[in-house]
Parts: sequence; C-alpha cells; structure tokens
Amino acid sequence: MNLSDLSHPNQLRDLSVSQLGRLAQQIRDKHLQTVAATGGHLGPGLGVVELTLALYKTLDLDRDRVVWDVGHQAYPHKMLTGRYANFHTLRQKDGLAGYLKRAESPFDCWGAGHASTSISAALGMALARDFQGLNRKVVAIIGDGALTGGMALEALNHAGHLSKTNLMVILNDNEMSISENVGGLSLYLNRLRTDPALRQIRSNLETQLRNIPLVGPTFSPEFERFKDTVKYMTMTRSKAGVIFEELGFTYLGPIDGHNLGDLIETFEFAHSLPGPVFLHAITVKGKGYEVAEQNQIKYHAQSAFDLATGKAKPASKPTPPAYTSVFAQTLVKLAEQNEKIVGITAAMPTGTGLDKFKERFADRYFDVGIAEQHAVTMAAGLAADGMRPVAAIYSTFLQRAFDQIIHDVAIQDLPVFFCLDRAGVVGEDGPTHHGVFDLAYLRQIPGLVVMAPKDEAELQRMMVTGIQYTKGPIAVRYPRGSGSGAPLMAEGWDPVPIGKAEVLRSGDDLLIVAIGTMVHPSLQAAALLSEHGIDATVVNARFAKPLDTELLLPLARRIGRVVTVEEGCRMGGFGSAVLEALMDGGIAVPTLRIGIDDKFVTHAGRSQLLDLLGLTPSGIAKTIRESLSTEPVSAPRA
Amino acid sequence: MNLSDLSHPNQLRDLSVSQLGRLAQQIRDKHLQTVAATGGHLGPGLGVVELTLALYKTLDLDRDRVVWDVGHQAYPHKMLTGRYANFHTLRQKDGLAGYLKRAESPFDCWGAGHASTSISAALGMALARDFQGLNRKVVAIIGDGALTGGMALEALNHAGHLSKTNLMVILNDNEMSISENVGGLSLYLNRLRTDPALRQIRSNLETQLRNIPLVGPTFSPEFERFKDTVKYMTMTRSKAGVIFEELGFTYLGPIDGHNLGDLIETFEFAHSLPGPVFLHAITVKGKGYEVAEQNQIKYHAQSAFDLATGKAKPASKPTPPAYTSVFAQTLVKLAEQNEKIVGITAAMPTGTGLDKFKERFADRYFDVGIAEQHAVTMAAGLAADGMRPVAAIYSTFLQRAFDQIIHDVAIQDLPVFFCLDRAGVVGEDGPTHHGVFDLAYLRQIPGLVVMAPKDEAELQRMMVTGIQYTKGPIAVRYPRGSGSGAPLMAEGWDPVPIGKAEVLRSGDDLLIVAIGTMVHPSLQAAALLSEHGIDATVVNARFAKPLDTELLLPLARRIGRVVTVEEGCRMGGFGSAVLEALMDGGIAVPTLRIGIDDKFVTHAGRSQLLDLLGLTPSGIAKTIRESLSTEPVSAPRA
Repeated sequence: MNLSDLSHPNQLRDLSVSQLGRLAQQIRDKHLQTVAATGGHLGPGLGVVELTLALYKTLDLDRDRVVWDVGHQAYPHKMLTGRYANFHTLRQKDGLAGYLKRAESPFDCWGAGHASTSISAALGMALARDFQGLNRKVVAIIGDGALTGGMALEALNHAGHLSKTNLMVILNDNEMSISENVGGLSLYLNRLRTDPALRQIRSNLETQLRNIPLVGPTFSPEFERFKDTVKYMTMTRSKAGVIFEELGFTYLGPIDGHNLGDLIETFEFAHSLPGPVFLHAITVKGKGYEVAEQNQIKYHAQSAFDLATGKAKPASKPTPPAYTSVFAQTLVKLAEQNEKIVGITAAMPTGTGLDKFKERFADRYFDVGIAEQHAVTMAAGLAADGMRPVAAIYSTFLQRAFDQIIHDVAIQDLPVFFCLDRAGVVGEDGPTHHGVFDLAYLRQIPGLVVMAPKDEAELQRMMVTGIQYTKGPIAVRYPRGSGSGAPLMAEGWDPVPIGKAEVLRSGDDLLIVAIGTMVHPSLQAAALLSEHGIDATVVNARFAKPLDTELLLPLARRIGRVVTVEEGCRMGGFGSAVLEALMDGGIAVPTLRIGIDDKFVTHAGRSQLLDLLGLTPSGIAKTIRESLSTEPVSAPRA
Repeated sequence: MNLSDLSHPNQLRDLSVSQLGRLAQQIRDKHLQTVAATGGHLGPGLGVVELTLALYKTLDLDRDRVVWDVGHQAYPHKMLTGRYANFHTLRQKDGLAGYLKRAESPFDCWGAGHASTSISAALGMALARDFQGLNRKVVAIIGDGALTGGMALEALNHAGHLSKTNLMVILNDNEMSISENVGGLSLYLNRLRTDPALRQIRSNLETQLRNIPLVGPTFSPEFERFKDTVKYMTMTRSKAGVIFEELGFTYLGPIDGHNLGDLIETFEFAHSLPGPVFLHAITVKGKGYEVAEQNQIKYHAQSAFDLATGKAKPASKPTPPAYTSVFAQTLVKLAEQNEKIVGITAAMPTGTGLDKFKERFADRYFDVGIAEQHAVTMAAGLAADGMRPVAAIYSTFLQRAFDQIIHDVAIQDLPVFFCLDRAGVVGEDGPTHHGVFDLAYLRQIPGLVVMAPKDEAELQRMMVTGIQYTKGPIAVRYPRGSGSGAPLMAEGWDPVPIGKAEVLRSGDDLLIVAIGTMVHPSLQAAALLSEHGIDATVVNARFAKPLDTELLLPLARRIGRVVTVEEGCRMGGFGSAVLEALMDGGIAVPTLRIGIDDKFVTHAGRSQLLDLLGLTPSGIAKTIRESLSTEPVSAPRA
C-alpha cells in the first residue's frame, strides 16, 4: 500500500510490519520534501514516524483518542489521517495548520502549540469516557522537554492518583525539546536510557528466551503471553522508572522508538494493563535525515532549505537584522558593562537570541526548560537580591506566567526586565503562537512599565531603559522577523525616558497615536491620507504604560479626533489605554482604535496576515478614511 | 527569655533547647489568642513553631534568607522578627499583614499568598548570592500541598540540576495543604512517612549508638560527627526520598518536625552539605491545640472563635447566605438534572463550596490539588468529549491558568464553565488574594462570555445560563461573603439570556452602567443623586462580554453622559469595555469609569476596603458629583 492510497488510518491495522516500514519511508520523504519547500518543524515529526505507525496499528481511530503534546510532532499523523494530498500546503495561507487543530480533522481531537498540555487533556478525555461508559483508549504523547513543564507534572501527579482510570502516556524521549533539556528529570531520564544493568538483564533474557526448547511452533498465544510477562518484568525491574512507578503509573521502557515490531508489541501489551501506564520510548530527533540527526537544535524547525545539503535557501534579497539579533547583541554589550545582568530563557535560547548571550556569559545564562512560571519567579528572586534579571520569553509563552508577573514580581515591585520576542502576529505558527494579548494583559498589572519600540534602533535604546530602570518591573515587546533597516549604533545608546512619547509628524486634522511595529506604517498611512487632504499628527507612543498624557492630552484636545494603531488585540489593548486616558483627562473626542479584532488570528505569512488585518499603511489609511465618513455623536445632549 | 524580650531573631542562637521549648509555648499561646480574636490562619502556623525556632537557631537572619511558601505558615516567624508586640493587629486595617510582605520587615525577604513559589524564589536568591560571592544560607520552606503545584515541580527540577548551588528546601509535610492532598506525590510522601523498614533501621541504630562503650565523655566533636554520618546513612538509605535524590537533591528525612533537638541537629548537618538539599520534616497541622489537630481542614483558617471550645463566635446578626453556598446549592440542583456536570476545584473544596457537590456526587467531583493549570486543561479535555465541566476556582488563583484558558479552552472553543469565587476585594487576605483583575484578563480572550451577577439570586440564574451555554467557554465571577438577601428560589431558575443587560432605574441626566456587586450600590447612589437633582438611569450590565450594545448605545446616545461602576481594576476592565463599545458605536460622550485604581489594594475588612475605594453608595455618588463639576471637552474642534 502506498501512502497516497490510504484513505483512513484504521487501514494501518491490517498492514504487516514490513508494509508499515515502507510507509515510514514514504512519510519521511514527503515530510522532508514539504518542509524543505515550505519551512516548518522537521526534527520532531521525523522522530515519531515509527511510533505513530505502530501506535495507530493498535488503535481504532474512529473511537480512540490520541492527544499529541504540541502538534509539530504530529506531521506523520496528518499524513495518515487524510491530509497526505494537501500536505504541501502546510503552514501556508488557507492550507494545513502547522499544529493540530480540532477544526481541521475529526482525527485531531486536541490542538496544541504550547507544550505540556497533553496529559491534562487526555486525563479529561479518559474521565469523560468512563462517565459515559464508552470503550475507548486514550493516549497522550509527550516529549521529554514538555514533561518538565509544570502543568505536565501536575497532570502526571493527578493521573497517577486515579488508579482506576485507564490512560496511556507515551514519553517521546529524544533527549531534546527544542534546545537541550534542563533539569534533574532530564538527567534522570538519561540514566534510565543508559542503565547498563538493565541492558544486560534484557539481553540475557532475550538469549534465554530464544534458547528455550519448544515443542511445536514457536508462535502460540500462550508463549506470546509468557514472553510479554517476561518483557514486562525486565522493563519494570531495576530502579528504572521508579519515579513514575512511585507516582502511580505502571512504567514500561525504555524501548526503541524506531523498531516497529517492538513498538507494536509493547503498545498491545500496554493496552491490556489497567490504570495509568507510562511508556518510555527512545527516539532520535530528525531520524532518517542525517543532517538533521546531527544538528538537532537547528533542524527542530527550519525555514525552506536545500534537501541535499540541508542549507537554508538564500533570501532573495538581503534583509535588515532581525529584532531577535538586535536584542541579543545589545544585551551582550550591556552585560559587558554591567555584571549584574543575568539572562533567563525558558527553552527558547535560539528563538530569543539568548544563545548569543550564553556564548559570551555562560555563567550568567539560565535556560530553565519549558517552565515559564519558574523562570519568572526565579528572576524575581534574583532581583530581590540585587541582580538585574532579563527574562527573554516569547509573548505567547509569557501568558503561562501571568500570575507570577502579578504575584511575585509586581506586588513586590521587583526590577525584572521582561523582553517579549514574537509579539504581534508571528505568521505561519498561527493562533497558538501569535503574541497579540500582551499589551492588554501586561498593562493591567499595577506598577509594570510596558514599552514597544518603533524599530530595531529604538529597541536598542529601550534595552538601556530597561536595564537602567530599577524602581520596579518593566517589559519591552517586539515582533518576529526583520527590523525596518533603521541605522543601528554599535554602542552608546541613549535610553528612552520612561513614559515619553515622540511626535513624528504634525497635522491638524487627526491625531494618530501608534505603538511599536505600527509606528512606521502609521507614518506612511499619514502620507497617504495627506494625498486626500487629511493632515495627521503622528505620535510614537513608545509606552503603553505609563502613557505620555502630558504630550497626548493637549494634542487630542486641540485636534479633536484620535486614531490609535497597534499590532495587538483591540479588547483592552493599547487603544483602550489611550481611550481611558483621554476620558480620565476629560476629553471625550471620537477615537478610532485600529488593531486586531476579537478573534483568534489564523496562520499565514506574517506580512499576509498584517495585510489581512488591515495593519499596513494602505489598510490603516483605508480604515481611517472609512471612519471619517461616518460622523459620530460627540456632543453631550444639549 | 520571654518572647516579649526578644528584640532580634539572632538572639535565638544563644538559647538552649529547653529555652526554645518555653518560647514555643509562648508562641502557641499568642498565636491562638490572636487568631481566636481576629480570625486568620491557625493550623499552618501552629504546625511550624518548633521548625521555625530550630531553623532560626542555626541561621544568621541578618545575612541568611528564609523563603516561606505562602506566608500564612509564617506567624511564628512574625513573632520572632520584631512583630510580637503588634501581633494582635494581624490582618486588620493598618495592622500586620496576614502573609509575609517585603515592605513590612527586613526579615520578610519574600512575600507570598499564592502557593508553590518558594523554591523558584529561593533558587534565584541562591544564584544571586553566588554571583556576588556572598556567604549566605538560602532556605525555602514549602508544604506538601504546595509541592504539587506545577511551578514548585519546575523549580525542584531546575534546582536539582544546579548541583553547585547550595540551597535547602524544607518540606513541611503535614499531610494536608488546605484540604486533603491529592496526587501520586502525596501517596508517595505518605509511604515515606510510614515506611516500617526505615523506622526499624533507625530505631536499631539509635539503640546501638547508645550502647557503644566510650572512653571519656560521650560528647566529643569526633563522636558527634560520627553520629551525624550514621544518621545521614539511615536517612538516605532505603528507597525513601528516591524521587528527590533522582532529581539531584540530597534527601534527609523524614524527621519529626516537633522535636527541637532533632531539628537543630539535622539543620546543622544539612547546612554542612554542598548542593541542593531536601529536608523532609513531618509536622502536625494545628499542633498543640487539640480542636485544631482533630479538624485540620476547618482550622486551616478560621473566623474569630472561642478558644475553649473552638466554636466560631456567633455573628452579631443573621446574615444572608454566602455567594459560595448559593453557588454550591444551585450546582447540586443542576447536577441532579444533568449527569454530564462535573465539578473541578484546585485544592479549594471548602472555599468554593464544591465540598457540597462532593457530598452528593463524589464520583463527579475532582480536587486536583494546587494545580490550576492542570484543572483548566483537564476541564477542557472533559468538555472536548461531551461532559459539562464546572471549574470552581478563586479569581486570583485562576490567574495561574491564564494561558490554559486562552490556549486550551478558548482557541478550541470548548464549553468549560468557569466559576470565580472571591472576585473583587476579599478583605483581610490582602493584595495577593484580591480578585480584581479578572474582568480585564478574561474579557480580552476571544470567544469567552463573562458574567457577574448583581446578587445571589441572579447568580442562581447565571448558573443555569452557564450550564446551558455550550457554544464555547463562559465565566461567572462573584464576591466573597454574604449576598444581599435577595429572595432565592429553590429551583426552576430562568437563565439570564446571553449578553442581555437590564434597566433598573430610568433618568435623563446620567447613564450609570454597573456590573456585579456594584449594581445595588449604584442604584442606591442614584437615589442619593436624585436628592441633588440628578436623575440617573441605572443599568445592570450582567455581562462584561458580550456587552449589550443594543441596549446601551441608544441610552448613551440619548443621555450623553455615562458612568461605569465595577469592583475590579479600571485598567482594561469593564469600564473600558463600555468605553470601547461607545466609541466603536460612534458615541464620544463623557464617560467616568469608577473602579479600582491602578494600585495593589491593601488588607482590611472587605467593607472597610470598599469604603476606602469609594465603592459604596455614598462613595459612588460623591465621585459622580465631583466629576460633574468639571466639564469635559467633548465636541470635536469646530
């Protein structure tokens, strides 16, 4: 059978191991070709090809539930569940999502772009099954990196306690999450993987089994059952898995996650066990593509690349440096002058650029693993005793630490500097990854300063502001991708004064107050508007909090018509902050808030999305002109 | 020495065990007398009297750092660090805080009202120490309940990995957090506590030690060191503590947390060990007060009570039923008719009233422990497979699951019903516990319906709304304490239609739009205003999202002056939602937003705080009259 002939994953149940092996090769080929062309996650999917095939052979996917922790490891799943033909549309506008998505397929029973959610979700599903008296297997598949996330540990702890609830947790252990793993748990897993005593016992038993003189055929149900039992004994013997056993799971493993026969046998056996089962499979990230196997961090996710060499395709034209690298270079420079600076990331060293900081200051660098809550509170502890912690976390992932920002940092007024990369729409990663809520969720926190630079040069200055500000917490948010090409200084940056906006253009018809990435487009929009006889003032707000009311209120009072522009949610966002300030200042003038409507934003290229959302110069100009054509009620009733 | 003579905790270093024992009694007496009079946390503090004394005897508190996880166990600490004389002011307005507070004392190096933060904070402090080359011990003290919180596990995992960083984690294991503990970890700790093999080994060794024939005095440094080593061997022998050992800690314990001599010896020994040390102490919650020892859940925290009997002092007059109990009774009734309803709490069964649900539907009840993230995502899993999960979590604690509400519930549009108790100001528990951010952080989430009832009768109706609504997630928030005495129905409640507000009073001068607890006070404020010739319309908004713009916009347009009133933060809160809707509807009219200013609210009685914040009928009327005296700019420039 060819992959293209597979119309339903249950067809896998009738295939032999060698037939599955051929499918595995086809999945790998397609995976590689597609991601080489479109970019996307590479290593995770290649690592679970056999695991997916073997698991699905033992399930009935019309009935059973498979919860993949972070959908980027589920590309083989996509190909096996009716999306092979469309697989080339991966991560593109109107194409397949880069993660799983309940709306995309009935086989996607759970969607996730953030890590560590699968055990909780699967436990919920297992309980729902039991309440409804259904016969259904529920399986969660989680990476060793995601297992260090607090919520995965909470779920493991709870599931282990529910001894009557059947649930299988498969640990896809590739010794890597996105970057290298961190923590005692990771060292522990490493010991399990390499335990020589365990290996020896197994190898002895296999030899002994093979040598048992048998009457009749070597295959009989009785003998198979005997073999299963022996295998189970070796798996749970020794101290392997004791943590999971102590938490209440039956531990099986570690097993080779690329051996189809072993996997199928172990899955079948695991399905027969009652209660929570923890199955530990060892896989190789990027398996089958040598370049990726050898550089697992780089090939976790990749932009389009040449399949033969593994090299990224050259960009069509040189682009300005990315915000990420400007952040990193500036931080390194500042850290050279200030030995109190400590860099903290939660499993995103490359993505945040903090790997550059690590190269220079290894001892002042901390990757705490997928553990945003701990990252933030540890930063607060460092700040409490005199250090200058810089917590570099993606906007969307910092949502995980919302309570810690409030409770551990802001209430105690500790000077933690939050640097939020990937703020705004991130592009192909889609709704789980867009960082569109941060301005709203950060600005409501008392005492927190919230900045956003108009370009990469202003980011440099804001980095200085952030490091110098020690009265309390401060945050800066900046987008994914290239800067605007603003001229950068190698050092000696002037800090942006706290709470100070700047006027970039003056005009009497309209006051446009923009923040962050929307400042330059707003300036261009103002130029377009002037062609229609509308003369706008444009302010770069710089701060969502505190707002520069000293500058804004007199302008608003004089001009009498305000537009705010932000790359963030309109509900409670920057525009609402301006609205609040105007009203509190006694200025009730028509105010148009341009930003992201109250919906989750789909996946597509970042510039495609900005276009769709009207967050381009022409989009902004158009929205403004439309709003001007409807005259608002503004005077209080006479 | 008497407790009242102690001017600095370092004086404890010179006291003998029997002197410390006398102090222990004095601490207990004061603790009991005070909490009996003021109300507050009782069990936790009584359980750590000896632990605190013994630890402080081995520390230099001018230099060392003690991080208490959740300050309600730190009342002995308060008495020992200069606050004995003021201890009677505990939790009262302008008095001592009920938790630790950096601003209150130099000995409070960390403040916490939410659980599970201490290991992260202490690790940050330990790293800060090493960076600065300081000589300082850093100790975190965490309860067994708090240890199940994801962030504590994240921190444990990370700390275990940093083998060169000296850090002591003391597990204050009382087999209880606030309610009974949950999870595999709790069962595991229980096995450690009761391991008979371990007990036998110890007892044998102690006997053998005692019988060793010695030349010379039995006390010599050499012999002491030998004893220490033997003790350490017995502690780390057997599989006791293997989880913590595997995570990278040196495990010591379990030890008796009420034996001063043993504690001091073990602490001294632990201080001498390099790297992360995990010390497991067994304590009895409520120790020394028999009533509390026997009912640990009830006496975790108590309102004022009679010391002799332990009975709560009768309220001065009968009060209407609390929101919590109305919630519970209504949920039980609804669950009788709908077997899909499942109740989920995160270690707050009594506080949320879900214990009543448990009594009736034990199998449909889940207390997941201090694990809000897991609670929410497990609820999402239940909803994904057809159940109707009700997640009953305090407003302030739900902040921990902000990302899960967005990523696991809202993006997937799953019908989870969030019931937020303790919304608004909670009173004596202070800034870490006020639930003032929820309207702002919930309403920014796409697809989430957010309700707040004006009284307990409307809560009943909203419970029906919440259960019947299956298009997506929905939340209701209600305050701590008694309802307003609104007549309750035993059953047969009409659901409040989604997004429908109601007009409670009509007037032409002013449109007051209030939500939740502020509806009745706003009505009364309107009555006060009418005495000054100001005739107000009062709307009960009921929904912060979706807003009833159909009702609100025409009213605002006609009346031309709007006031919003909420018991929540003004930054991005309900008032901003109204402001946004007005502007989006083309209505730029003066709008005054009454709510909680951009500051953390202190501790004091709930009604005292509402008074301070101006959230009373007279306060609201006063603020409105003041705002009317300053005429805003409202017309666009001519």
